[in-house]
Amino acid sequence: MDGSMSRVFNFSAGPAILPETVLRQAQNELLDWRGTGMSVMEMSHRDKAFMSIATEAEATLREILRVPPNYKVLFVQGGATAQFSFVPMNLAHGKPSADYLVTGFWGRKAAKEAQRYGRVNIVAQPEVFTAIPARDSWSLDPQAAYLHYTPNETIDGVEMHEVPDAGSVPLVADYSSSFLAHPIDVSKFGLIYAGAQKNAGPAGITIILVREDLLGHSHPLLPPVFDYKTIADNGSMLNTPPTYSWYICGLVFKWIRDQGGLTEIGARNQRKAQRLYDYLDGQDFYQAPVERSARSRMNVVFRLADSALDADFVAGAAKAGLPGIKGHRIVGGMRASLYNAMTEAGVEALVDYMKEFVRVRG
Amino acid sequence: MDGSMSRVFNFSAGPAILPETVLRQAQNELLDWRGTGMSVMEMSHRDKAFMSIATEAEATLREILRVPPNYKVLFVQGGATAQFSFVPMNLAHGKPSADYLVTGFWGRKAAKEAQRYGRVNIVAQPEVFTAIPARDSWSLDPQAAYLHYTPNETIDGVEMHEVPDAGSVPLVADYSSSFLAHPIDVSKFGLIYAGAQKNAGPAGITIILVREDLLGHSHPLLPPVFDYKTIADNGSMLNTPPTYSWYICGLVFKWIRDQGGLTEIGARNQRKAQRLYDYLDGQDFYQAPVERSARSRMNVVFRLADSALDADFVAGAAKAGLPGIKGHRIVGGMRASLYNAMTEAGVEALVDYMKEFVRVRG
Repeated sequence: MDGSMSRVFNFSAGPAILPETVLRQAQNELLDWRGTGMSVMEMSHRDKAFMSIATEAEATLREILRVPPNYKVLFVQGGATAQFSFVPMNLAHGKPSADYLVTGFWGRKAAKEAQRYGRVNIVAQPEVFTAIPARDSWSLDPQAAYLHYTPNETIDGVEMHEVPDAGSVPLVADYSSSFLAHPIDVSKFGLIYAGAQKNAGPAGITIILVREDLLGHSHPLLPPVFDYKTIADNGSMLNTPPTYSWYICGLVFKWIRDQGGLTEIGARNQRKAQRLYDYLDGQDFYQAPVERSARSRMNVVFRLADSALDADFVAGAAKAGLPGIKGHRIVGGMRASLYNAMTEAGVEALVDYMKEFVRVRG
Repeated sequence: MDGSMSRVFNFSAGPAILPETVLRQAQNELLDWRGTGMSVMEMSHRDKAFMSIATEAEATLREILRVPPNYKVLFVQGGATAQFSFVPMNLAHGKPSADYLVTGFWGRKAAKEAQRYGRVNIVAQPEVFTAIPARDSWSLDPQAAYLHYTPNETIDGVEMHEVPDAGSVPLVADYSSSFLAHPIDVSKFGLIYAGAQKNAGPAGITIILVREDLLGHSHPLLPPVFDYKTIADNGSMLNTPPTYSWYICGLVFKWIRDQGGLTEIGARNQRKAQRLYDYLDGQDFYQAPVERSARSRMNVVFRLADSALDADFVAGAAKAGLPGIKGHRIVGGMRASLYNAMTEAGVEALVDYMKEFVRVRG
């Protein structure tokens, strides 16, 4: 069957929409990868066919993100949530404390998990997550093992558009929902981690970039398969990696490069978000609760004037081929996730639907 | 392209051969799962479409394995190796020790990892892994938190054909390479875990069956995403699960059911292994080093009379469409993995190749 005619504009926050060309290539290669007579799913991770897939994926990622040579790239399992434990177990052991700048649901959860492994200093944490706390309200600790923050808060739709200056303290970022969404200067970070299931690939693989000098000081109870140094020393193959997810990530990285790289991707993402926020700001039926300076380019959170209409709005959107629009239950309302694979046509279709909904129900 | 004409007989130890009908269904559905307009890879794990996939996969697994109702089925990340740490962190905390019966490479590694979390009693461990230590040589501890063993040792080709009697001590089994290879009585076990990438699906998902009364006593430093009770309480969706791998596992479970279930699968596996061992025992060029009573039905280890011919044997096999035959470097020689998806025709093709190799090079 030809899926192209029936593909929807999927606004899910993750797992999320993937580029159709990536899915088509995966489909074509599913039973026989380049004449090997087997699926990538069936390849031994030690086989040279899979090794070439893994190596090429890392090389492409390094190219599109301009990863400096003194950073290791790791492909691990467990999701970003697992890293809420493994970051402090890898980096905070023997240190007096770790700094956490909390700007949303996930950052708060990361800070809470870290408390099980040592002292945590909350640099700042607002009552409601609709803005970034002012810089002069932060209480940074120059002795901290690291400063952890969440550049884009998927649930709250809050994004920090500038990389915080942590001085000599290594900066650690949970980049899950804005990884590969625009160019970043990796050299500003000690560690970046990201669950793949937003812009990088399917769920089940987490990508970590870590500066080499931070390796090798882990907690003695950290399982070896989650020790960054052990993972790095074994090329992310200490044990069997999630091979098929790694392969799909590699296809996505190439797709990003073929689109013109992160500069072009970032410009598109800016246009997509701007189009939706401009519409939201130009009428009264829908409201965007996040302050303009902290609005996410990836997850656009908005509310209807009357929440009694929420269910109809969501159902109508799904019927119109725009699924995944319902907001997280904690925040309520709606959330349109505009990851890299969401086209400008998809955003236009959403705005059209929103206008029509106002016309009929507003 | 039509992959069916060029598919090879893949003897890899894992990731490993998958049923072609499963791969074909995955291929057909890759861009549009049942009219949803999206790939399973793109579905939110909270979406009712994916929930139905997840629920059905568990139900099918429970059916084919006859899992008793007082057992939880968990789908987690990290591979079986991660469980070498998480089993003791979940089950041995506050207990005086844990018993490990070591019959091969993986069991020894599991015992070593467990020592980081508490005292480990090695019940038995032979010098070389070619036989199961005699029952009267075991030193079982009736106070142990559990007795851990590895029913099938993938690298050594050693299988325990009987389930050990641990009395009232919960039995824990790393079933990775013989999971779903034949019927088992789940009620004899406290916990079963298995990396999927042998008989159950792609790498990146690990299946755990755990008796409910063992839950809730974990080590305080165990990350919540790896706490069996927390995972069970959240239907394996505390964080984003490896959705696509879960889906493929579900297709494999249905394939097993459609083949006639584990009784039929087990009979086929018995025939396949018997065919190869019978050939090995009937000539002098190849040797099977494992004692007959401990021979694996999944991973048939054998050696050539002259190891100088190993490289040619492996290369010739790959050329003949029989890749993945090289033994693990620790054991050397050859290893033919005969997982469920390997057909009897595949085993016949291997025996034919082996005969021809002897004729030409023996």
